[in-house]
Amino acid sequence: MALPRWALPEYFEDVLPVAAQRMERLRRRLLDDFRLHGYQLVIPPSVEFLDALVSGTGQDMDESTYKLVDRISGRTLGLRADMTPQVTRIDAHLLNRQGVTRLSYCGAVVRTMPRTTTSSREPIQIGAEIYGHEGIEADVEIVRLLARSLTLAGAKTLRIDLGHMGLFRALTAHAGLDAEAEEALYGILQNKDVPALREFVAGRPQIVADSLLPLPGLYGGPDVLVRAMSELPDVPGVRSAISELLHLVKHLGNLPLSFDLADLRGYHYHTGVVFAAYSGTSPAAVALGGRYNEVGKAFGRARPATGFSMDLRDLVALDGEVEQSSGAVLAPAEGDESLAAAIEVQRAAGEIVMLELPGHQGAWREAGCDRQLVLRDGAWRVVPLEE
Amino acid sequence: MALPRWALPEYFEDVLPVAAQRMERLRRRLLDDFRLHGYQLVIPPSVEFLDALVSGTGQDMDESTYKLVDRISGRTLGLRADMTPQVTRIDAHLLNRQGVTRLSYCGAVVRTMPRTTTSSREPIQIGAEIYGHEGIEADVEIVRLLARSLTLAGAKTLRIDLGHMGLFRALTAHAGLDAEAEEALYGILQNKDVPALREFVAGRPQIVADSLLPLPGLYGGPDVLVRAMSELPDVPGVRSAISELLHLVKHLGNLPLSFDLADLRGYHYHTGVVFAAYSGTSPAAVALGGRYNEVGKAFGRARPATGFSMDLRDLVALDGEVEQSSGAVLAPAEGDESLAAAIEVQRAAGEIVMLELPGHQGAWREAGCDRQLVLRDGAWRVVPLEE
Repeated sequence: MALPRWALPEYFEDVLPVAAQRMERLRRRLLDDFRLHGYQLVIPPSVEFLDALVSGTGQDMDESTYKLVDRISGRTLGLRADMTPQVTRIDAHLLNRQGVTRLSYCGAVVRTMPRTTTSSREPIQIGAEIYGHEGIEADVEIVRLLARSLTLAGAKTLRIDLGHMGLFRALTAHAGLDAEAEEALYGILQNKDVPALREFVAGRPQIVADSLLPLPGLYGGPDVLVRAMSELPDVPGVRSAISELLHLVKHLGNLPLSFDLADLRGYHYHTGVVFAAYSGTSPAAVALGGRYNEVGKAFGRARPATGFSMDLRDLVALDGEVEQSSGAVLAPAEGDESLAAAIEVQRAAGEIVMLELPGHQGAWREAGCDRQLVLRDGAWRVVPLEE
Repeated sequence: MALPRWALPEYFEDVLPVAAQRMERLRRRLLDDFRLHGYQLVIPPSVEFLDALVSGTGQDMDESTYKLVDRISGRTLGLRADMTPQVTRIDAHLLNRQGVTRLSYCGAVVRTMPRTTTSSREPIQIGAEIYGHEGIEADVEIVRLLARSLTLAGAKTLRIDLGHMGLFRALTAHAGLDAEAEEALYGILQNKDVPALREFVAGRPQIVADSLLPLPGLYGGPDVLVRAMSELPDVPGVRSAISELLHLVKHLGNLPLSFDLADLRGYHYHTGVVFAAYSGTSPAAVALGGRYNEVGKAFGRARPATGFSMDLRDLVALDGEVEQSSGAVLAPAEGDESLAAAIEVQRAAGEIVMLELPGHQGAWREAGCDRQLVLRDGAWRVVPLEE
């Protein structure tokens, strides 16, 4: 397969001018909104020691991460596949605050393989995190901010799926499953494989069946939580998880919430409420997030944490706008003070002014020009481009 | 050497909140200015086939570039160490325009080793390029834009060193040096090693000494160009290089230009005018650029090209401002419509408003709050933070 030299590897892409400008606008809109909500921007490096990148985030993250060798220390570096562990490291040790810390970030991450057949191997990850608050109030704020972000991105429809990792952990503890059985069960539930689940509980004590068999049916609107209360074993971990989800329903009543109590995405590092946001008919989530109180432990300082992240590449597609250039004004490259002043006036008004380099007559429309600055009756005027 | 798990590899760093916000502001200021001058933003991927990344840029770039294996194609990928070849690829094939194309970019690049002991292994590269114009007018525009960018970044003092790669190539051709001798000479001139240069010319024809010995002395103000005309052999390549530099002096008369005709930085890919900008007393350039008409050839389409790039990490240090937070307003997390309206008013005025999550009294100043929103006499008011 002889690819031309300018071809890109699969699932990597260039963002060309009009789309790049839209992405830049959206990036600013979201970071500005995060900032006004008290989220402070941090910029971690693209590369750091592998240990720090994959600590507490599980095997999936390790497999997604490209490895490099540090020419200075000889140690293994990772090319980040997710910024959240980095932001957690910054909260834990760089900032080292005792109270609530709200952080935001935006940067490219690289994955060895795409997560889905429609996703990029290089998402441009943008997100917000709250550290230091254990209570459900932080989850309320984060889900609200997520919904707001998707609205700012122009999402026409929105659905937020909620789950709770504490519920699953309470049920497996109640059922007396060991780590190996829990891992097997995780795979079964991730695949929504009900026959396999029946097989899994068969031959085990009745308490296992009672704890697990209701799970795959517990998805839908907020009434799922009421059903969960009657169908699942009444143990403290289950009660507190359902109670947290009910708190979200109460405080996020204006959002289109749905529930999936068998959803275990992020099982390896999430600890409490988890969520995924969907827009339109796409089966791929446009935002993912949730509680991960234990990730900081790898850095010697576990702090309560919740947050979400999105891929700017996905977000720019949400508003369905047709991409179009805003046009530009062509101006002579050299002239007197009056020309310089006329160009300044245009640029101050937000107009793009390109200087006319000699010898390219007929090619300026291609460059995006639709008007030109000409001297008429002693004054510089903007007129439609003639060429 | 047991580093803590949160330590970063040498020459990599986190950018923490206040500095990150300054960097973000500067990034926007520069990209907006590029845009108003007609430079369109493009966002190439962090990773692409190694061939494409190092094509036409020489051995230095290859050694700076981390290699990865594409899990899909099995081919070697590179983690970009410079964005210019990527932007050149985009101009050559993605946009494929016939006329002038102005492009800008901003993104992190990663290098196996830092270029200097004070630089990062992950510069955040920002820059602008003009493709498709052979004439010196494009170089004038690029140097002017560079100077403008450094002023926007708050540079207090500025010096722009100019050189010309065509001059060196014309001299070595005139002196009849082969590629091997030229490469040796390149090393000698890069090190400003005058004794080695004398040794190099000794035993070779007189024309070699006549062509090369004047070079190390040809640095300083614009009068260098006058001296060069009398001291260097009068051959077409030398004449046209000097004539281009004189054109820059004429059109950039308001800029602090200096010249170094023995400077060969970028020798492996630059073809014409080259420049480096310096600020303050630092010996490290804050911006580098020049002509590279041949790089696109690797993509099957050599187009005239000139541009510059800078590292945002260096640029934010230029204005010498003391970094300080702008403060924030603490507001109750839950309240009625009037609270929500009061918060909106603050945020619309550009104030950061953080919601008060319960149980963190005494820790909000640490989070950046210096004021709070309180209900007094039936109205929400911003008062100094009391805690």
